[in-house]
Amino acid sequence: MDSLTPTAAGKTEALAARYGRDAIPPAGPWNETIAGMLGHRSVRAYRPDPVPEGTLETLVAAASSAATSSNLQTWSVVAVRDPATLAALAEVASGQKHIRQCPLFLVWVADLSRNARLGEAEGVTLEGLPYFESFLVAAVDAALAAQNAVVAAESLGLSTVYIGALRNDVERVAGLLGLPPGAVGVFGLCVGYAANPGEVKPRLPQATVLHHERYGTDAEAAQRAAYDDLLRDFSARNEMGPETWTRRVINRIGTLKAMAGRDRLAAAMRALGFPLR
Amino acid sequence: MDSLTPTAAGKTEALAARYGRDAIPPAGPWNETIAGMLGHRSVRAYRPDPVPEGTLETLVAAASSAATSSNLQTWSVVAVRDPATLAALAEVASGQKHIRQCPLFLVWVADLSRNARLGEAEGVTLEGLPYFESFLVAAVDAALAAQNAVVAAESLGLSTVYIGALRNDVERVAGLLGLPPGAVGVFGLCVGYAANPGEVKPRLPQATVLHHERYGTDAEAAQRAAYDDLLRDFSARNEMGPETWTRRVINRIGTLKAMAGRDRLAAAMRALGFPLR
Repeated sequence: MDSLTPTAAGKTEALAARYGRDAIPPAGPWNETIAGMLGHRSVRAYRPDPVPEGTLETLVAAASSAATSSNLQTWSVVAVRDPATLAALAEVASGQKHIRQCPLFLVWVADLSRNARLGEAEGVTLEGLPYFESFLVAAVDAALAAQNAVVAAESLGLSTVYIGALRNDVERVAGLLGLPPGAVGVFGLCVGYAANPGEVKPRLPQATVLHHERYGTDAEAAQRAAYDDLLRDFSARNEMGPETWTRRVINRIGTLKAMAGRDRLAAAMRALGFPLR
Repeated sequence: MDSLTPTAAGKTEALAARYGRDAIPPAGPWNETIAGMLGHRSVRAYRPDPVPEGTLETLVAAASSAATSSNLQTWSVVAVRDPATLAALAEVASGQKHIRQCPLFLVWVADLSRNARLGEAEGVTLEGLPYFESFLVAAVDAALAAQNAVVAAESLGLSTVYIGALRNDVERVAGLLGLPPGAVGVFGLCVGYAANPGEVKPRLPQATVLHHERYGTDAEAAQRAAYDDLLRDFSARNEMGPETWTRRVINRIGTLKAMAGRDRLAAAMRALGFPLR
């Protein structure tokens, strides 16, 4: 058992906030970096304060330091501060006001265009580029880079929220940012100082997402019922209505209407130069 | 200018290792968490030492704390220690020996099957599930979770390497791990103590990957030439042959043969229950 040093108590509290008191996992080693990650919450209201000088370059240095498949580095990032562009991006994202409000907005780009330009300059056909695999490499590269930037930002006392709703209209986003063929904004990221950081959102228990040797679902129904209770209480406390996880999942992916245009994503990607072969 | 406190000097050294001395970006705020991320290197040789008890649960707690699109939590992770499974996974990955060598191997799963089971149990058709968008959400969710686990592991003195080559045969991986339809291993991750951590690998300059307001390529050719020099020297120092970045990119995605089966990924994904509509 851990002694009740401040760190051990902090660890238990952090795990309870993330998983609920009834599902605290037997986590071992702990430190400040991990405690910082456990404290993550997505923030959708920002103070007007700018980020300190050099913050963007620090975040991109962290992003560049993430692993990248075969060192292909198939990602880019566009930093947007122009109010007209931010207003247009917010419109794409169904009006999410924090896009206009945050002092730094980043669009993370799955970018095969740089490698394509390399091939053209060298007079070589890169046969792998048109394949689904290459888009997936680029999307994962962009996600790993972005998550490093998020951890870096939060370690500096900043808050963030990913904006997947840029995928409501990837063609319009590409036009706004001047993206070449083979480049697509996979998500945005607001960065700034939280107006109200709010409460850590509980997640599914480790027993649901972590499997040993082989995937199993024996206890999943009971785990989901317990998590439904946990999330209903969280939602009620945070003025989001007493919704269970089950209900939220159904609302979010139950209908094509809820996809807000993203049911056309594959076609839009092909129009942007990703054959997804 | 920074004064030469140990931290400021360490920051300059970390940025020089990542970008080369001629491309140090004007990074601002800095701390230990960020320094840790800057020090990342992918490690392909591990000591036999086990990871401390509870490490897996700590890493998954960090992973669970990453953002997830609309809280759908469309990822899972399978921890593999069984030697027979590891040998089979290494075979899928063109024989990468560190898969058998590392004390902890994690397969990160883009997982729409959990939400599908929820829909079935509730008697609701989740219309969004068959779409390309939903797979992308799941792949990005898995990547964000995995990258938090990587940052956590490295903060504890462990090393890691992603194994994208599991995608050489996603159907065999799904069979080995008992994945249900709608779940696919998007990449693996070795975790353990480095036999030889090696040198930080330089990346493309920030001027190449970071754009302001709009995407631009005016200086890209010159930046690529400078990075080619930097990476050739790195490769020569690290006994990988004096290869430029340009040459490596061409070798990696120039031919279908180099894809080692991943040109069939879209078809394999459909067979695993992702229509990618």
